[in-house]
Amino acid sequence: MTGENTPTLGAVLYEGFELLDLYGPLEMFGAIPGQFRIITVSDTPGPVASTPGPATVAEYGYADCPPLDLVLVPGGIGTFTVLDNGDLLDFLRTRAETAQYVMSVCSGSAILAKAGLLDGRRATSNKQLFQFAVDPGDEVEWVEAARWVEDGPFVTSSGVSAGTDMALAVIARLRGEKFARSVADFTEYQWHTDPDSDPFARFLNAMDPETLAAAFGGAS
Amino acid sequence: MTGENTPTLGAVLYEGFELLDLYGPLEMFGAIPGQFRIITVSDTPGPVASTPGPATVAEYGYADCPPLDLVLVPGGIGTFTVLDNGDLLDFLRTRAETAQYVMSVCSGSAILAKAGLLDGRRATSNKQLFQFAVDPGDEVEWVEAARWVEDGPFVTSSGVSAGTDMALAVIARLRGEKFARSVADFTEYQWHTDPDSDPFARFLNAMDPETLAAAFGGAS
Repeated sequence: MTGENTPTLGAVLYEGFELLDLYGPLEMFGAIPGQFRIITVSDTPGPVASTPGPATVAEYGYADCPPLDLVLVPGGIGTFTVLDNGDLLDFLRTRAETAQYVMSVCSGSAILAKAGLLDGRRATSNKQLFQFAVDPGDEVEWVEAARWVEDGPFVTSSGVSAGTDMALAVIARLRGEKFARSVADFTEYQWHTDPDSDPFARFLNAMDPETLAAAFGGAS
Repeated sequence: MTGENTPTLGAVLYEGFELLDLYGPLEMFGAIPGQFRIITVSDTPGPVASTPGPATVAEYGYADCPPLDLVLVPGGIGTFTVLDNGDLLDFLRTRAETAQYVMSVCSGSAILAKAGLLDGRRATSNKQLFQFAVDPGDEVEWVEAARWVEDGPFVTSSGVSAGTDMALAVIARLRGEKFARSVADFTEYQWHTDPDSDPFARFLNAMDPETLAAAFGGAS
């Protein structure tokens, strides 16, 4: 912990992040003012474009990022590029040593896996692109059917929307179930509270490499 | 229509917008590349801060914004300030004349109401803060229990998360039900397809002015 009553959540940005991977969780952590401090971090400060275009401003670079209690790593088509970003992987390895929770959404778990942080742990990822996400993690016990998986300080969610359910679960751990429920009600969100209920596991690896390349311009 | 095969969606930003109001819909419109062009617009180009901090870059000001097929107006605590923003209200009035759909999420419907665009029409808004949102719209037929309401080119959703369901409904109108379903499946989103099913209507006006002021620093 940073030693303050308001835990600091660092949201990691990279070019080609998936919008809801980032903003579903940030909505839940940020809905009630004063509960969590949210900051954004990337290679360097400045605008970082999402896949469909809209850019979010990174307030910090990895080098000057304040202490973090919580780390959030979104997925997205940009995942496949940043798997080779040594600065990002080093940042995650260092911050995971002191953070209370390190969360990933969708293919973000591939980044945690590439950093070696999930070795020997249970984790999940996007369902339609499961194989792409899990490729960097030979030593990970990948769970095919789960909305999210918690193992020690690492909480990995399934694709895109699943991150919102995971965020509420982490909020419940930090601030209590009643508070998390009040966040869901305030944001008119139908929270799926069971991490083992995964209605999208039936789409496991439904998107093959050719389809992905056609849809996303060969970014795989 | 702008005359192109790819409809252009203009997302309106203002200081204090609610993150998921904006990004739930943008995720759904932007999930599959090439289907919709998404641009961001505000008073002037540049970063616009959300309530909990993270800023999104507005690419255009109202004056230089390209033609729009779709307009998206998020809600948020900043709504109460921009109700007096004549430039924004003029922009919405002008663009509503040619847009195929003008969408709002949460208290965003108060802005459309203030612009006079919802006079004589059915519309809905955030449930816990319903009265705040509907105050500017004496001539609007406000619907207390609805996930979203469609009336002509205006589609208004209930609070925060409801915008995501509304967006998928509009996508279904524009690209077909099957495509919208594929977006929901790809984003692992449990789409609530019934606009009349509103599990949060029971919280109507649950948040009183004092609670709101305490939580949000008197921004009401």
